[in-house]
Amino acid sequence: MKAIVIITGSEFVQGRKQDKNGLFIAKNLFERGVDVIGIIISPDDLYSLTNYIKYALDRSDLVFISGGLGPTSDDITRQAVANAIGVALIYHEEWLSKLKTEYKKAGVEITQERKSMAKIPYGAAILENPVGRACGFIKVLDDVKKAIVALPGVPSEMEPMFYNALDKLGLKEKKKFTQLYRVFGIKELDLNYLLEDVKNISYNFSPKGVDIFLWEDNEKEFLQVKQKVKERLGSMIYAEDNTEMEEVVGKLLKEKGLTVATAESSTGGLIVSRLVNVPGSSQYVLGGLVSYSNEAKINILKVKKEDIEKYGAVSETVAKQMVENVRGIFGSDIAVSDTGIAGPTGETPDKPLGLHYIGFTDGKETKVYKEIYKGSRNDVRLYISQFALNLIRLYLTDKERSFNNG
Amino acid sequence: MKAIVIITGSEFVQGRKQDKNGLFIAKNLFERGVDVIGIIISPDDLYSLTNYIKYALDRSDLVFISGGLGPTSDDITRQAVANAIGVALIYHEEWLSKLKTEYKKAGVEITQERKSMAKIPYGAAILENPVGRACGFIKVLDDVKKAIVALPGVPSEMEPMFYNALDKLGLKEKKKFTQLYRVFGIKELDLNYLLEDVKNISYNFSPKGVDIFLWEDNEKEFLQVKQKVKERLGSMIYAEDNTEMEEVVGKLLKEKGLTVATAESSTGGLIVSRLVNVPGSSQYVLGGLVSYSNEAKINILKVKKEDIEKYGAVSETVAKQMVENVRGIFGSDIAVSDTGIAGPTGETPDKPLGLHYIGFTDGKETKVYKEIYKGSRNDVRLYISQFALNLIRLYLTDKERSFNNG
Repeated sequence: MKAIVIITGSEFVQGRKQDKNGLFIAKNLFERGVDVIGIIISPDDLYSLTNYIKYALDRSDLVFISGGLGPTSDDITRQAVANAIGVALIYHEEWLSKLKTEYKKAGVEITQERKSMAKIPYGAAILENPVGRACGFIKVLDDVKKAIVALPGVPSEMEPMFYNALDKLGLKEKKKFTQLYRVFGIKELDLNYLLEDVKNISYNFSPKGVDIFLWEDNEKEFLQVKQKVKERLGSMIYAEDNTEMEEVVGKLLKEKGLTVATAESSTGGLIVSRLVNVPGSSQYVLGGLVSYSNEAKINILKVKKEDIEKYGAVSETVAKQMVENVRGIFGSDIAVSDTGIAGPTGETPDKPLGLHYIGFTDGKETKVYKEIYKGSRNDVRLYISQFALNLIRLYLTDKERSFNNG
Repeated sequence: MKAIVIITGSEFVQGRKQDKNGLFIAKNLFERGVDVIGIIISPDDLYSLTNYIKYALDRSDLVFISGGLGPTSDDITRQAVANAIGVALIYHEEWLSKLKTEYKKAGVEITQERKSMAKIPYGAAILENPVGRACGFIKVLDDVKKAIVALPGVPSEMEPMFYNALDKLGLKEKKKFTQLYRVFGIKELDLNYLLEDVKNISYNFSPKGVDIFLWEDNEKEFLQVKQKVKERLGSMIYAEDNTEMEEVVGKLLKEKGLTVATAESSTGGLIVSRLVNVPGSSQYVLGGLVSYSNEAKINILKVKKEDIEKYGAVSETVAKQMVENVRGIFGSDIAVSDTGIAGPTGETPDKPLGLHYIGFTDGKETKVYKEIYKGSRNDVRLYISQFALNLIRLYLTDKERSFNNG
C-alpha cells in the first residue's frame, strides 16, 4: 500500500517555519507497512493544493493532508479535496450544532467562516477533533479503492485524529518491526565495521552518540538481527527508545538511592542542567558548581593555586581536585567534573582545541579521562556532557570493563 | 518566477530523519522574490523522483533538487534528471580527472560507482563541490526557459553550491525585504493587538519569546512598517537577526567590562550554561552555583536556614539572599538567581506550578521579580532562564522603565 503525505502552509514553503507533521505521519505509516512515496509541502493556495491532491491520488492508495482546516480564508483544504475529486462540500449537521453551542457559550458570533469548520466533502466521514473546533474527515473513493484523510495542522489536534484515522482504515497495528538503539562510545568507522553485515539499518550521528535504527518485515528475522546487534554493542547501548542519557542516569540514581553533584568548567553548567531536566531530579541532584574562572576554581572549589600554575587549568590534576572537592562541598555520593578547551580559541602548543579532562569519583576512587573532541563549541560541550553522564551510567550499571574504556 | 524544491532521501519519507535543506532553500528563494510553490520529499527511487521532477518542470520555472548525487546505488538524481528531460548522462572530463587524481592520492580504487560522481546530463554546466567529491549541475532548458539545479544533500556541501547556483541564475540579490525582530516580555494577545494593522507579518512563539517576521516587496513601504513595528516594540526587541539572548547579553557585558555569576535552583544551571555557550564568555562569566537542594542553599550559598523554613525555598527572601550571596562568593559585578517550581510536581496550596522568583543585583540594589509560567518542565526552565538573561540585558542597556516592568 502506497501513501503520499501533503502538508499545507505558506509559512513552510516561504521558509519561515519547519514542518514536523510530515515526519510524524511518515514514520507512523512506515511502521504500519505503508510505503510512503512522498511528503509534499504545498502553499495555502487552492490551485497548488488541488493539483498536489490529484497527483497524489493518481500515484498512491492513501493521501494524508495536514493543515488548512481552520476558519480563515487561507484554510483551503476542504475546498481543494472537493475540487480534486469533483464533489460538493456539505455541512456535517452534528458537528455544526456542536460548533453553534460552543460559540454561543463563549458569547462569540458564529460567522460563515467559523461555520465552514463543519464542512466536509459529500460522502466523507468526519474525524472528531478532541481538542479544537475544526473537524477532519476521511473520504473513501470506492470506485478506485483509495482514501483521502484530512487532518488539522496543530500537532496536539492532528496526532490523536491521525491515530483515529489509522484505526478506521484498519491500519492500527504496526506491521514493520523496528528498533532504536542509542549508543555512546564508539566511532563511526568502528560501528560500520562492527555492523557491516546488517542490512536494514540506518545511523544518525550527533555529539550525543549514534542513534541506530533497525527495521524488518519479518518478525523472526527481526528478533535475530536485534539480538545480534544488541550483543555486539553491549553496554555502549544507553537506551532502547527515545530516552535521553540524563533520564537513564536519573532512573539509575533513583533506584540506587544515590546523590550527585557536578564541578564544571568547559561545559559551564550543561551537565547539571541536563540532570535537572528530568522531572523528580531533586531527589538525587544536590547541585553543581560552575567554576569558569581560575579564581572560582581556587576560591570556591579549593583547587590548589600552585597546581593550576604548574599544570594549567586544563589538566588531569585540576579535574581530579575539582571532582573530589565538589563531592565534599555538596556531600554527594558521587560527582563528575570537567575542564577543557571548547574553542574556538584557547589552544596552546601542547593543549589542542577540544582537549578535555573529565573526572568521576565515588569517594573511594577517582578516575580522570582524557578526551579530545573536534567540533563547534556547542558540539564539544554537548559531547563532553554526554561523556560525563555516561560515566555515571556505566558506574551505576557496574560495567567495569566499559567504564575503563571510557 | 516559480520554483519547486525536491529533496530526495528514503530516510525522510520513512520518518527516520527530519529534512532541513528544504527550509533553507525555500527561505533563500523567498527572499529573492521567487515564489516557492512546493517542497517535495521523494524516496530514493528512480520512478518516484523522475515523476516529481517532471511534475515540477510542468508547473514551475526553477527546480532545485538536493540529495542523491553520491556514489552508491541509491544515488539516482543524475539519472532521474536525465530521464525526466530525455537526455543522456555524460562524464564531465575535468571533474573526472580531478576525482581520479584524488582517489589515486588516497590509494583508493576509482570504481564505476565513484566515477559516476562526475556525470552530468548532456548540456548541463557543473557546479563545483568545494568540500565533497560529487559535483552538482545546472541544466537550462532553453526551449521552455526553465532550469534544473542539482545539489548534494550534505548541508556543508549544498549551501555554498546553492549560493553559487543562485549567482549563475542571476538571483544573487535579495528582492524581498524581510526583517526579523526577536522580542521578549509581551503576551500573545497584547502583541496581536499592538500590531493588528501590520499586514505581512508572522509570529513564532516559544518560551524564549516571540520571533516576529516582516516582509514586503516594496522598499519604501518596508522601511515604514519596520520603523513602526520597532517603535511600538521598543526595548522588548532583544535582537534584529538570529542572535540569541545570551549572545546579546555577552556582547553587552564585554562592552561594559562587567562580570556575572549565577545562583540557580529551578533552572539548574541553564542560565550559566547558556552564558557559557557564547565564544569568549570566559572574559565575563565567573561561574555559577546550582543549589538544587536546600542544604546546598544553606551550606554553600549561605541562605539563612530560618528563612527557608519560614518563607519556603521558593520565596522572594530566598531569591534575594541567593543572588546577593553568589555575587559575594564569586566577586562578580552583577548576579542573577532563581528559585521556583518547574513542575510537574512540587506545587503547594499557596504556591502554584510555574511560580518563580528571579533575583538581580549589581551590588547596590537588588530586585526580585515574581513570575508564573505554565508549560512543560523544560519550557518553564527555558522561559525563566530567558527572563533572567533579559534582566541583565535591560540593566546593561539602561532601559529602566522596561526593567521595572520586567
